[in-house]
Amino acid sequence: MKKYNFNAGPSMLPHGVVEATAAAVLDYNGMGLSFMELSHRSPEFKLVLDEARSLIKELLDVPGGYEVLLLGGGASMHFCMVPYNFLVRKAAYLNTGVWASKAMKEATLFGEVVEVASSADKNFSYIPKNFDIPADADYLHVTSNNTVYGTQLHADIDSPVPLVADMSSDIFSRPVDVSKYACIYGGAQKNLAQSGLSFVIVKESALGMTGRAIPSILDYKVHAEAGSLFNTPPTLPVYTALRNLRWIKEQGGVAEMERRARLRADVLYSEIDRNPMFRATVEGDDRSFMNIDFVMASGYEELEQTFAEYAAERGLVAIKGHRIAGGFRASCYNAMPHEGVEALAECMKDFSKR
Amino acid sequence: MKKYNFNAGPSMLPHGVVEATAAAVLDYNGMGLSFMELSHRSPEFKLVLDEARSLIKELLDVPGGYEVLLLGGGASMHFCMVPYNFLVRKAAYLNTGVWASKAMKEATLFGEVVEVASSADKNFSYIPKNFDIPADADYLHVTSNNTVYGTQLHADIDSPVPLVADMSSDIFSRPVDVSKYACIYGGAQKNLAQSGLSFVIVKESALGMTGRAIPSILDYKVHAEAGSLFNTPPTLPVYTALRNLRWIKEQGGVAEMERRARLRADVLYSEIDRNPMFRATVEGDDRSFMNIDFVMASGYEELEQTFAEYAAERGLVAIKGHRIAGGFRASCYNAMPHEGVEALAECMKDFSKR
Repeated sequence: MKKYNFNAGPSMLPHGVVEATAAAVLDYNGMGLSFMELSHRSPEFKLVLDEARSLIKELLDVPGGYEVLLLGGGASMHFCMVPYNFLVRKAAYLNTGVWASKAMKEATLFGEVVEVASSADKNFSYIPKNFDIPADADYLHVTSNNTVYGTQLHADIDSPVPLVADMSSDIFSRPVDVSKYACIYGGAQKNLAQSGLSFVIVKESALGMTGRAIPSILDYKVHAEAGSLFNTPPTLPVYTALRNLRWIKEQGGVAEMERRARLRADVLYSEIDRNPMFRATVEGDDRSFMNIDFVMASGYEELEQTFAEYAAERGLVAIKGHRIAGGFRASCYNAMPHEGVEALAECMKDFSKR
Repeated sequence: MKKYNFNAGPSMLPHGVVEATAAAVLDYNGMGLSFMELSHRSPEFKLVLDEARSLIKELLDVPGGYEVLLLGGGASMHFCMVPYNFLVRKAAYLNTGVWASKAMKEATLFGEVVEVASSADKNFSYIPKNFDIPADADYLHVTSNNTVYGTQLHADIDSPVPLVADMSSDIFSRPVDVSKYACIYGGAQKNLAQSGLSFVIVKESALGMTGRAIPSILDYKVHAEAGSLFNTPPTLPVYTALRNLRWIKEQGGVAEMERRARLRADVLYSEIDRNPMFRATVEGDDRSFMNIDFVMASGYEELEQTFAEYAAERGLVAIKGHRIAGGFRASCYNAMPHEGVEALAECMKDFSKR
């Protein structure tokens, strides 16, 4: 049975990327050695790291004056590194859910934190708009896509203070105007690679400005100066990232990824809106193209477990919602083929006919 | 040509571990999904993580009252986490080389740091003995094996203050009396797994004692309470670790690993001591069984590059010394077969006959 993997992350990767990673694990380029056994100082690894960083710059059209880092750890590490590196006195955070809240919590250890707006009043089912940003904030932090609640900022916002974004779950899913950001970061395990790796795109002029003594491993400047080789990076995840970045480029780049994401989201939200048995938890323009959240409609709540099992029997993996949000979540990152969402929509149709 | 990989880390892994990792990347247990695509909250991953942590306890005979953590990042992360979690006022560090110095440098951000002894006077070619440990130090930090200079602490020392050890490069190579330590940590990329992962064995009663506000991601207590799932761990490296831990157990455990390491080291040091063309950089009991450092003997210095090429032509990979120490370094971790060191000793013999 053909399976479609809707995991929220670690999540589906293009099959060619999976195969290339497996091949590199067995024997890298006919060297008679596993990629896992190569030194991070070897010329072979250096080529992989350099091409990966350079493809990130190319795919996102990163302007001059920015550094691209590939580091160990995930977004939770950067929840701590961002204030360590950028917070002098006051930081502004937009609270759009679990991950935004976690990021905000870490910042409170480093200075004053202002919550500019929150959608907690409606269970984070929308992205707040028209909020005031303190002009004296060192930065404004946003979470571009909220995996748990299924909301997404579909455009790069204008900010009077330096903008920092956690793009863990929608990086490489659309063109980004990097020039609007001081720092973009995220974990790799959705649209970039396997888990254990994180990416950072940081404005060079924003580094080294706090006057704070920063532990080396947490200092973006240290990593930038060392070309992402200050310490041993997660070497195999970097290789998976390279193969995935090449795949995105071959497929037509991030504009094509966005076109596909919109089509996939359209198929699913249309069926959810049409089908009386289901209800989307997010309305309108804030709906995420990456994580499509829905619940059983009023009157059908007791069928939740039945539908979950029905979908699983058809090879639709991991559509159960996050343990906090409940209901269902179809995570549709770049690697999800259009047939995957068609299969899920068909499954919802068939279920309601039963 | 059969190759022997003497890389210092990331380094050689048992071939079965490499094959098992590649198979899991392609399709994990016939699920039709790559291990890289599984959620870290899935029952499949949970089983892998639990078995890996439990094998670490079993292999090292970890007493009750200790937590075993498998986290992202490497030893450099713990150079920062150790003082964050344990340094209140004063810490003592034994300076045995590059990694010890780096660990010590990070600690200076958190309190007073006392260097109890240093072997810098003789280019770190020995382990200092009979040093005084301040009775009021929060901990004494040692580096059990020094990959760059090729020295090793072959026994667990007695310390009047809590003992913390970086065992990145010799963990699982000998039995350890864990009860003597408050914390043992290290990067995984030598004797445990591929890069991107680190391990921590920490005494529960030593946690949460500083009164300092610690960022969540750097707080051992947070990771312990979350069972190493506070954030997304590097899932595939954890799987590689599990397969390698199973391999160590099947081979006879850490006592057998030590027996083999001593035999391998004996073959190489004997040839280095016998062969007039070569000279060991470390003498006596402090010689590392993991990283065997040597140089061309006096009068033969100009043959260094020639020997490096001669060895490479015979399939002996990466015997060049660390860029700081120069000369040669044969890293012989658990996965190095005895034939590997015999091939290198033979190569030295043949070279000197030419």
